[in-house]
Amino acid sequence: MEKETARIEAFSDGVFAIAITLLVLDLHVPKPEDIKNTSMLISRLQQAWPSYMAFTISFSSIFIMWVNHHKIFKQIYKRNSTVMFANGLILFLVTSVSYPTALLSRFYNTSSAGLVVALYTGIFVLINLSYNLLWYAASRDKELLRPGMTDAAILRISRNYLYGLPTYLAAFAISFVYPAAAIAICVSLWIFWALSSGKVPGPL
Amino acid sequence: MEKETARIEAFSDGVFAIAITLLVLDLHVPKPEDIKNTSMLISRLQQAWPSYMAFTISFSSIFIMWVNHHKIFKQIYKRNSTVMFANGLILFLVTSVSYPTALLSRFYNTSSAGLVVALYTGIFVLINLSYNLLWYAASRDKELLRPGMTDAAILRISRNYLYGLPTYLAAFAISFVYPAAAIAICVSLWIFWALSSGKVPGPL
Amino acid sequence: MEKETARIEAFSDGVFAIAITLLVLDLHVPKPEDIKNTSMLISRLQQAWPSYMAFTISFSSIFIMWVNHHKIFKQIYKRNSTVMFANGLILFLVTSVSYPTALLSRFYNTSSAGLVVALYTGIFVLINLSYNLLWYAASRDKELLRPGMTDAAILRISRNYLYGLPTYLAAFAISFVYPAAAIAICVSLWIFWALSSGKVPGPL
Amino acid sequence: MEKETARIEAFSDGVFAIAITLLVLDLHVPKPEDIKNTSMLISRLQQAWPSYMAFTISFSSIFIMWVNHHKIFKQIYKRNSTVMFANGLILFLVTSVSYPTALLSRFYNTSSAGLVVALYTGIFVLINLSYNLLWYAASRDKELLRPGMTDAAILRISRNYLYGLPTYLAAFAISFVYPAAAIAICVSLWIFWALSSGKVPGPL
Repeated sequence: MEKETARIEAFSDGVFAIAITLLVLDLHVPKPEDIKNTSMLISRLQQAWPSYMAFTISFSSIFIMWVNHHKIFKQIYKRNSTVMFANGLILFLVTSVSYPTALLSRFYNTSSAGLVVALYTGIFVLINLSYNLLWYAASRDKELLRPGMTDAAILRISRNYLYGLPTYLAAFAISFVYPAAAIAICVSLWIFWALSSGKVPGPL
Repeated sequence: MEKETARIEAFSDGVFAIAITLLVLDLHVPKPEDIKNTSMLISRLQQAWPSYMAFTISFSSIFIMWVNHHKIFKQIYKRNSTVMFANGLILFLVTSVSYPTALLSRFYNTSSAGLVVALYTGIFVLINLSYNLLWYAASRDKELLRPGMTDAAILRISRNYLYGLPTYLAAFAISFVYPAAAIAICVSLWIFWALSSGKVPGPL
Repeated sequence: MEKETARIEAFSDGVFAIAITLLVLDLHVPKPEDIKNTSMLISRLQQAWPSYMAFTISFSSIFIMWVNHHKIFKQIYKRNSTVMFANGLILFLVTSVSYPTALLSRFYNTSSAGLVVALYTGIFVLINLSYNLLWYAASRDKELLRPGMTDAAILRISRNYLYGLPTYLAAFAISFVYPAAAIAICVSLWIFWALSSGKVPGPL
Repeated sequence: MEKETARIEAFSDGVFAIAITLLVLDLHVPKPEDIKNTSMLISRLQQAWPSYMAFTISFSSIFIMWVNHHKIFKQIYKRNSTVMFANGLILFLVTSVSYPTALLSRFYNTSSAGLVVALYTGIFVLINLSYNLLWYAASRDKELLRPGMTDAAILRISRNYLYGLPTYLAAFAISFVYPAAAIAICVSLWIFWALSSGKVPGPL
């Protein structure tokens, strides 16, 4: 059976690739006129560590989201309005990630750390919801799925997505009080997904 | 019959994907040295709501234009100079959208709202005209179209594109007096297109 | 016979698509704090006309260069070191176009117009040379070309590329004295190429 | 046998193409209000030569890394977690190249030249390590490789990657004392790779 979703996948791949690469634009280089000597440059670069952290974890998270996007679309052969809308929402939110990333990189070292971590974890709550919406829209109509898919296989994927939500919500909830712990929870989730993704058989 | 337009479609997809992702670069993050405390940061982020609005509606509009671009090129199998020129014009205008978007996001809250909304709706008038030109160039020469396409099918698409024009013109006309209403008209049109696009059968 | 150059073409397409879209980042939006009223905003936007001109003509030129890139690679089936190097040089120069474009858009209205127009036309001299190098490297070894290509067809393409060089050199030579005329010569060449490209048969 | 890695290659190509093109954004154009006359503009553009150098060598290095990426993935038919992780690391580091490039372009002319050259050569040490990791992960499990690959062919590629490491380490080691020589060593290595890459048979 012909796969109806090839073009939307290729377009989505493009948006993921651009969004992940644009993140680097938020690593700001000091101006030479502000720097008197090498030790001052070193100290400035060291102070910018939250921007390296933000770049690294946002890059990792978008990469993992791209892997998951593929895994879902490997199971989807036809599309309807809800699938299109949910996918558009995912692309919109993935593109947006660079904004809370920039906020995180600039304000993590300030008294506003709680707020920017809440915005940062908050966008992953929304992204998780939009992935759940995409899979819900596709899986409730077996006509859209890869022919021959079993109910057990559908259920396994559904569960896999659902358990991300409480983790992100927990991270979001503690953001204001324990910002570092909230970041750590998100990073742990991504490491867990990265490690477990290798075990799922079949082409990426 | 071989499709002559595969490469121009792939290139256009790339431009659409980049143009839609670059929009996020106009979400500006406040500088830490300008922010004294968290409530000041919150207030700054709230004041930036026109830039979130502009980002959201421009992202949605480019996404819908990309869907429409595909639908048209699914019917076009050969190209001539006018098709190439009209497509180049569409890509040029889609790339340009980020400029009136940036103007909208910075000046919607000022006394210049009417002007920037007129420029914003104005570019969609031009984009609509270039889509009409593309379809006119392709449809007047049946040699260029998908083999076996009926006159009725051609007419249905032609009508579909033409009725966008008066809507955009109406939005443009009232921009100076009722800027919010002009934006609302464009958004309504995109929602209508998004909802109706799911009903059109066939692969995207 | 298998085409060895598919991946280099896809990569080149990506670079062209990104380079053409990034041009829009040089359209700068005035800051709201510098603008007192709508007529001041209008006057600022009008004064920025060189940046609209530079964006428009650079976009057009990269689009036409992309079309030509495809036409050449439709004839090339194998690659050697020189083909790879010449193509890398083309991508490097096409990516660079945004820099003289930015200089043109900022200094065309100043006493430095001659210099920035010379730099702008100069990069097209270099791009033309690199296209000639690419085609020379491919065409002197018939093993690299599409099987069954005649000497007459090779010669026709060679001539087509060579006659661009004196035109660009003429534009470059008069840049300091007649900057507007130098720009006009380049634009005329691109219009000529755009009009004549439609007549060449075969898929793009 | 079906190639499992097609999508990861296409995504990687996209990231390489965007990363290489974004480098141009670090060529900064002087502001017209800072420039009094043409000779001042010329002198400013001349002073910016480290940014042209940095742009040129980073563009070349990413282009060569892309060529090598293809060569490796032509041999890889299946993926495991380590291959995915090593490839993700390569993409992360390639995207990051623009940051040490920007530092190099701004501080090469200052007393901090040693530091920024060390950071610049340092990232290529890391990239070399990640390529070695990718090839090590793929080659130690023959199941992942192109069917029919001989031990001799595997060994030839392994050697080819390993000898880059001491060269980069040497460049890194002398960065603080002889920054110009460290840059020259990297450039020589890339020229050597570029020249030798043409001799390797088979499609790119």
